[in-house]
Amino acid sequence: MLTNRHIVVLGGDARQIQVIEKLISLDARISLVGFDQLDRNFNGAAKVAMDELHPEEIDSLILPVSGTDDQGQIETTFSNGTIRLTRDWVEKTPEHCVIYSGIATAFLNQLTKETKRQVIRLFERDDVSIYNSIPTVEGTLMVVIQNTDITIHRARIIVLGLGRTGMSLARAFHALGAQVKVGDREPEHIARATEMGVAAFHLKELEKEVQDNEICINTIPALVLTSRVLSRMPSDSLIVDVASKPGGTDFRYAKKRGIKALLVPGLPGLVAPKTAGRIIANVIAELLQDKLKGEESE
Amino acid sequence: MLTNRHIVVLGGDARQIQVIEKLISLDARISLVGFDQLDRNFNGAAKVAMDELHPEEIDSLILPVSGTDDQGQIETTFSNGTIRLTRDWVEKTPEHCVIYSGIATAFLNQLTKETKRQVIRLFERDDVSIYNSIPTVEGTLMVVIQNTDITIHRARIIVLGLGRTGMSLARAFHALGAQVKVGDREPEHIARATEMGVAAFHLKELEKEVQDNEICINTIPALVLTSRVLSRMPSDSLIVDVASKPGGTDFRYAKKRGIKALLVPGLPGLVAPKTAGRIIANVIAELLQDKLKGEESE
Repeated sequence: MLTNRHIVVLGGDARQIQVIEKLISLDARISLVGFDQLDRNFNGAAKVAMDELHPEEIDSLILPVSGTDDQGQIETTFSNGTIRLTRDWVEKTPEHCVIYSGIATAFLNQLTKETKRQVIRLFERDDVSIYNSIPTVEGTLMVVIQNTDITIHRARIIVLGLGRTGMSLARAFHALGAQVKVGDREPEHIARATEMGVAAFHLKELEKEVQDNEICINTIPALVLTSRVLSRMPSDSLIVDVASKPGGTDFRYAKKRGIKALLVPGLPGLVAPKTAGRIIANVIAELLQDKLKGEESE
Repeated sequence: MLTNRHIVVLGGDARQIQVIEKLISLDARISLVGFDQLDRNFNGAAKVAMDELHPEEIDSLILPVSGTDDQGQIETTFSNGTIRLTRDWVEKTPEHCVIYSGIATAFLNQLTKETKRQVIRLFERDDVSIYNSIPTVEGTLMVVIQNTDITIHRARIIVLGLGRTGMSLARAFHALGAQVKVGDREPEHIARATEMGVAAFHLKELEKEVQDNEICINTIPALVLTSRVLSRMPSDSLIVDVASKPGGTDFRYAKKRGIKALLVPGLPGLVAPKTAGRIIANVIAELLQDKLKGEESE
């Protein structure tokens, strides 16, 4: 339980609703900033404006998945107002105040250095990344089904990268009857793909392997689908790039060659906001409770 | 090969392009009616108007999946003109002329009786139905992903009917990690579901089984999701009815209760016209060649 802990949720999208509900169930004291247009009220969470908060009374700050922009501004779906985090404001919070963000941003990195407040980047955790791969897979299925005139079943599909997301993608497309081929650099990933019953190749063979490709799904956050590789790929291929921005595809060249290439980061919040929200809610709840237990036993 | 056979393709959608290509590869003599606006020409297939045809020279007639309407009119995507089949016209074809249609229609049934020409209903064949279940599954995945805010993974999903399509649906959703429960009347289907590792129940238990449902997919072409059943289903459930029109859901009552219920027959042509066309092309090619062999050996 989080009784008497004051947690402030600053902005975000539909996913934060799951976080708020979870924190209410744990009896925290909750303030919501940037939810004034949300057509719903919560028993146990107060909608307030940023300047109504007393930073010295805040135990935890929860930011959206996107964190902040370079000026500290925070995205919020449920308000027309702007929310901005500043160094001065954060310095007024107690030293034990922890900031939870989905991803790291330059502003947050700088803030940590200057204010010594801990910033936890939830999406850098392996567990969050693996749980999040589930809605990412389903979003990718949707995008592929919408953008091809063939079935996934029996299609020749290349998955680039057998990391936390690539593993889930390879498994799902394989289960649906696709002819999956995984490209990776790590011998253990190539071994794992083989164990799973899908074909595997080393990325240095990519130029050769794309020659009869129908659908290519990239998870690697580095330029792997170069113009050289794309020049060998059939022009009626579909590329779905789920790596974080700017993706791993030379989109300019893909367009020139007539290959449909889609950069689709952030699928979880798009196709399954409730499940994606629960993933974040569960890990935040666990971290907050662990922290409280740690403080109590000190 | 179908050398010197004169085959007429009457109307249809993008799926017929696969049929035309397949028949060309088998060296048939092909006339296309209702393709005047198709932005493409075929080497070995002539676009003609209905009144340019000599019915006495036709060996086979290929209709679209939908067959004809009650007046003998034929749907065509690639023409603004209308195509109509009449008894008089069909009677002028040689007695061995076979008519291939996706489904049976009242008009075609009457035509068979009156003209003694054989009408083959491709979609009544088990093999076609099973092959077609593959794009149906992928279309259903798309519809479910688009219309829910949760993932398929771990969702409570009921599949009604473990027939040719239900089997494919149950397998795919199970493979993606859903909690699948199959409802059917046949003991052997309940046994098969159990063998596949999914839960199963007899349809007479449906009222009880829907109480914690999240997603219900119906394949049974009879009213199974009655108002009585729907009154027990959570109102935030999603129903996807893939049974042929009018489906198996009391849509009026579902709407009244606030349950989102979608009737989505014909998914294969929508989500994977190329694969769906190949399925039809392959079975037509096989049937035509078998018929020719049969005639030659007589």
